[in-house]
Amino acid sequence: MSQPAPASGHDLPADPAVRATVRADHLQSLVDAARALVDECRLELGPDGLSVCAADPAAVALVDAFLPADAFESYDADGAVVGIDLERLDDVVGMARGEQAVTLLFDAETRRLHLLVEELRYTLGLIDPEAVRSPPDIDRDAYDHSAAVAVEGREVDRFVAAASMVADHLALGVDPETPAFYVEADGDTDDVALRLPPAAVCAFEAGEAHSLFSLAYLDAMARPMPADAEVRLGLGTELPVELSFAAGAVAVTYLLSPRLVRH
Amino acid sequence: MSQPAPASGHDLPADPAVRATVRADHLQSLVDAARALVDECRLELGPDGLSVCAADPAAVALVDAFLPADAFESYDADGAVVGIDLERLDDVVGMARGEQAVTLLFDAETRRLHLLVEELRYTLGLIDPEAVRSPPDIDRDAYDHSAAVAVEGREVDRFVAAASMVADHLALGVDPETPAFYVEADGDTDDVALRLPPAAVCAFEAGEAHSLFSLAYLDAMARPMPADAEVRLGLGTELPVELSFAAGAVAVTYLLSPRLVRH
Amino acid sequence: MSQPAPASGHDLPADPAVRATVRADHLQSLVDAARALVDECRLELGPDGLSVCAADPAAVALVDAFLPADAFESYDADGAVVGIDLERLDDVVGMARGEQAVTLLFDAETRRLHLLVEELRYTLGLIDPEAVRSPPDIDRDAYDHSAAVAVEGREVDRFVAAASMVADHLALGVDPETPAFYVEADGDTDDVALRLPPAAVCAFEAGEAHSLFSLAYLDAMARPMPADAEVRLGLGTELPVELSFAAGAVAVTYLLSPRLVRH
Repeated sequence: MSQPAPASGHDLPADPAVRATVRADHLQSLVDAARALVDECRLELGPDGLSVCAADPAAVALVDAFLPADAFESYDADGAVVGIDLERLDDVVGMARGEQAVTLLFDAETRRLHLLVEELRYTLGLIDPEAVRSPPDIDRDAYDHSAAVAVEGREVDRFVAAASMVADHLALGVDPETPAFYVEADGDTDDVALRLPPAAVCAFEAGEAHSLFSLAYLDAMARPMPADAEVRLGLGTELPVELSFAAGAVAVTYLLSPRLVRH
Repeated sequence: MSQPAPASGHDLPADPAVRATVRADHLQSLVDAARALVDECRLELGPDGLSVCAADPAAVALVDAFLPADAFESYDADGAVVGIDLERLDDVVGMARGEQAVTLLFDAETRRLHLLVEELRYTLGLIDPEAVRSPPDIDRDAYDHSAAVAVEGREVDRFVAAASMVADHLALGVDPETPAFYVEADGDTDDVALRLPPAAVCAFEAGEAHSLFSLAYLDAMARPMPADAEVRLGLGTELPVELSFAAGAVAVTYLLSPRLVRH
Repeated sequence: MSQPAPASGHDLPADPAVRATVRADHLQSLVDAARALVDECRLELGPDGLSVCAADPAAVALVDAFLPADAFESYDADGAVVGIDLERLDDVVGMARGEQAVTLLFDAETRRLHLLVEELRYTLGLIDPEAVRSPPDIDRDAYDHSAAVAVEGREVDRFVAAASMVADHLALGVDPETPAFYVEADGDTDDVALRLPPAAVCAFEAGEAHSLFSLAYLDAMARPMPADAEVRLGLGTELPVELSFAAGAVAVTYLLSPRLVRH
């Protein structure tokens, strides 16, 4: 597709630092996972795949999303970090049908990212990665989650929607006695509660756990979860919750800090 | 599903005044019929079923909706009257799939209504029924409708939508000469008219009738009408129109006062 | 359907100047083609069919749309020109299902247009055609298009949508060397380009061509194009583009002036 440019210069790089081709829906999953928390982010085009790690502006939540090289039709990257406007990338990827191939070409010299979808070529201006807020350095092993459950994405969606009708926060917990995984939202006039025994979830590791979370964040995180994906929740008492799932070929992990509870 | 409550108290009543289980779509039909006119209403949980009778704030229109006990999977109620916020009840019922069972538990002591949908439990705070505007006491037999027709819900929807394009009121009438049921809307620049001979309607009882009605009300009343339900219209001259139909298992009757006509 | 009028006068003309019956979707295509550029227009009910010719308020674009008499179930018109509010006509036609027959009756005496859809009758007040802006008199043969291509409607839709993400105008051109039909949109930060070789389009007549157009107009013009219709683009250098296609039975031609380019 390299040809003499007409009226204006739209040359593709002869020797791009990254050249990778992948189905549009895989790229869309990566974008959706990141857009739940941020508008712009650093995208790492590493030798093993594309990854995003970002914290929301209030630094309450973190997203880690990874699209591995083996999900690509072809992948050739030495490693580059670019700052990207996710809304614009979303627009471009959203123009393609899910199964259509998107080719990414990163021109290190002009610092522009070209996306080719059939005969259409999009050229995105990039943001200096140094100008993009970097995620806080978190030692994840420091979170000693006392309990864990796995439920389907549709279940997360259901309890977040139900709780949102009555309150702006909810409690996620595990009652090791019953035993049960529970969700509780107490509003001014109405309450919502869900209790799932081990038999009603995909996986269950008992342990005392109870923390309160903002529904606005959980709602944003529930959107990119496929309805039938198994979502693992790592839980503790007044500890961040970790939500991990696969959105197609993309491995996504969210970390969300608990709300302060008045005692 | 009674278990020791965790962090906060979400106990279900051991001996509820009402315990009833019904498909979500039946409950939804009751809610939709009532919401066409009011935001909150008295809900009577009588021994024979659930009923709502309410007038809109301007007391121009009345709704009577009844979901009989035999439409329930199980129904056990001595009789209770609660005041309910229909928008919140709508939110809760709308979360369930149509064929899902919803269990209603009314705790007379705490005056709260619990709705169970699978493992989810919603607890709605209720309104003092005395604080809810009561419908005017109307002697319906006093309306001596001179004519009646029955048409499908989709037909009501069609003539209401057509008339709404040109005016904010329409005339419903029967011309016993032609004979025909007619609908007429005269706007500032455009007019809409519909004439249906007896053969084009489900039922036809001829008699002189002509009254003018507000389209805003008719539009609201047309929404809960199933497209294929037979809607009976009781008509007279400068008399309220009575619209009766079955929304699934729910029997609905609306009464709408005519607009004043300048002579 | 002529009967003694009830309460108000809704008589149909006994001897209308125009009586024509056509599928609603054909009429809808004519309305859609015209509404892309104007809110009201002259509608010519000529002996050969219905035609609209109108220029947008800024006189940057022109539409010519023609629904021939042989697309009608029956067509009887001596010739009449009426001024019509397209939004109201759109509302009426939109109420009918696509395959439903719409009968047009033009009453020259009252200057009203009646539309009959089954038992529903709409009566539209008309605008004095002298009060409707007339399209500029253009000698189309004066445009000596040096190149032409034909692509499917979905392709026009795709490049207009892609370009709209980055800019408010685009260049349409033909590069006779490669050869290729090209579309280019240069935004502040991002660019979009499409190059289609002769094999990728339905028809290709090579010749040097390059002109810049407003995307707002092209977007409006792309809406009424059926996805699978062949759209012919007549192109030149700093010349208006002519887009011709068939929207079902309606022959549509748009003419769009180029934007001025700063040299």
